[in-house]
Amino acid sequence: MPERFVLHPQLAADTFAVKELSLCRLVAMNCRAVPWLILVPRIAGAREIIDLAAAEQQQLIIEIALVSRLLQTEFKPDKINVAALGNVVPQLHVHIIARFTHDAAWPKPVWGNVNIEPYKPEDAEAFLNRLLNSKLLS
Amino acid sequence: MPERFVLHPQLAADTFAVKELSLCRLVAMNCRAVPWLILVPRIAGAREIIDLAAAEQQQLIIEIALVSRLLQTEFKPDKINVAALGNVVPQLHVHIIARFTHDAAWPKPVWGNVNIEPYKPEDAEAFLNRLLNSKLLS
Repeated sequence: MPERFVLHPQLAADTFAVKELSLCRLVAMNCRAVPWLILVPRIAGAREIIDLAAAEQQQLIIEIALVSRLLQTEFKPDKINVAALGNVVPQLHVHIIARFTHDAAWPKPVWGNVNIEPYKPEDAEAFLNRLLNSKLLS
Repeated sequence: MPERFVLHPQLAADTFAVKELSLCRLVAMNCRAVPWLILVPRIAGAREIIDLAAAEQQQLIIEIALVSRLLQTEFKPDKINVAALGNVVPQLHVHIIARFTHDAAWPKPVWGNVNIEPYKPEDAEAFLNRLLNSKLLS
């Protein structure tokens, strides 16, 4: 029987759900330091981009572009960082992060260079609503 | 007159050429710590993936997959890191890095966590030949 997609427990602990896209579950890192979204393809067992079928890879870049546009439109960042690393959490996931020249880690990558402090509940809700109210996600 | 693509001087200084693909110039980071390739779309002025046209984005993921397969086939890494950061060098470029559980930075990302020591000339040549002799690049 084929394995069923389940969000990795570490990702489940660190994030909150935003929306289901065609290929990916879009979640938000619960980190107040920077607007930080994560795309997780709902393909059980995938660890690398090349574990996806070609059509899934094509859909992945479409969703990366969608989420990049969402962050760019809503937050006007100085740079967008896009990364599939997975050294710690093996389940394939793609970080898409709005970066600012005044953020805590700039110009370094965020991993290991920002404190992962959760949003206040009302700020998490405002952040989520801002994303969900975007025309790009409708 | 449209701007012409020129490799950013910092990328030119840090890398050596591997091959011209359909969309990207493929270069290798001159860093002996890990097998580290970089795709640079030959699109003048592009900083973000969303600065590429949709068809170029689709080609980019094809080339990311090709280079990922190349690293996987030749070096059998434990993980492949794929990242478009660009906080320091603004020209759009995508790192594709073969990672090993025994490498100098594991499990951290490489940026800031490995020494960028160049290959010995004979090792650079062997690395380049190994890539160019792969069926995947022919």
